[in-house]
Amino acid sequence: MKLIEERILRDGRVLPGDVLKVDSFLNHMIDVPLISEAGREFYRLFSDCGVTKILTVEASGIGIACITATFFGCPVLFAKKTFGNNSDDEKLTQECKSYTKGKVYNLAVSKAYLTKNDRILIIDDFLAEGSALRALCGLCRQAGAEVIGAGVVIEKRYQGGGDALRAEGLRVESLAKIKSMTEKSIDFC
Amino acid sequence: MKLIEERILRDGRVLPGDVLKVDSFLNHMIDVPLISEAGREFYRLFSDCGVTKILTVEASGIGIACITATFFGCPVLFAKKTFGNNSDDEKLTQECKSYTKGKVYNLAVSKAYLTKNDRILIIDDFLAEGSALRALCGLCRQAGAEVIGAGVVIEKRYQGGGDALRAEGLRVESLAKIKSMTEKSIDFC
Repeated sequence: MKLIEERILRDGRVLPGDVLKVDSFLNHMIDVPLISEAGREFYRLFSDCGVTKILTVEASGIGIACITATFFGCPVLFAKKTFGNNSDDEKLTQECKSYTKGKVYNLAVSKAYLTKNDRILIIDDFLAEGSALRALCGLCRQAGAEVIGAGVVIEKRYQGGGDALRAEGLRVESLAKIKSMTEKSIDFC
Repeated sequence: MKLIEERILRDGRVLPGDVLKVDSFLNHMIDVPLISEAGREFYRLFSDCGVTKILTVEASGIGIACITATFFGCPVLFAKKTFGNNSDDEKLTQECKSYTKGKVYNLAVSKAYLTKNDRILIIDDFLAEGSALRALCGLCRQAGAEVIGAGVVIEKRYQGGGDALRAEGLRVESLAKIKSMTEKSIDFC
């Protein structure tokens, strides 16, 4: 999606450690009009798939997922990394490794909110090694829910996570696919 | 707001420890069509205030803030509880005590994204003792940004946080104000 690529080129910054910093419009400050266009595009791509619910992971996926859900008119469920003391419900959990934070944690959703009747669209901000996407698919598998596909805003394609998931049969749509990046330049597929 | 009150009565559950569980539509699963109506109402209330940015706190405020921002056409900035290794920026931080999680933590935003030119609308899911709202106001004060008001979906008014903030001059608008609640009944103001 041209709009996202242009914004990455304008405002993204490549940091040491192969990190693409886009927190001025995607995952700290959120440019809601821009992300609305991303949501509209996800709707165009997946509108005929009978989506019943959008699944994402806290925190940076929530905004994009909710904005996308305004087009679908469906609820969003976000997997949590920690649960507060206001939850006595049965959970589904799945292990996940964060690329940017460099640690392993469990993602959890309340069992009641993810069911075998759901047709799930997964939405997230980033796809690199695919660990979060894989964990979200695992939660759906445990629930017996069908994953109709995944939409991510930025895929670091050279890290291979997206293509591995595609090879396993998951439909993955990324609005900007990064072929390579250095501190001097970012190239898209 | 009738719609929110009715939904709380239908799906909310009062748990021991004075906790109102609304995670089937507000802060785990998000009923996006319902929250869109909440966002529309926040827009009606604050549309003439020259809002430049909506400020909230991760994770449960993000969805509501982003949906509300689609009406304002403005960006959302969410304060973080932890920063990953993709952030080398200068931060503003403010201490905050979580009511439901029972712990103290720091809220932080990147200094670059909250400025003295901003007119901030704070949006959050819950207001009880007012600690999160107070911390968000503190971040704005540090930045020299003007807080034009705060919109919350549910205020547990009997805990006094909202009225204390109102007494200090903050405009606080809550869509459902709980006067009292027990495991058997919930009464609104």
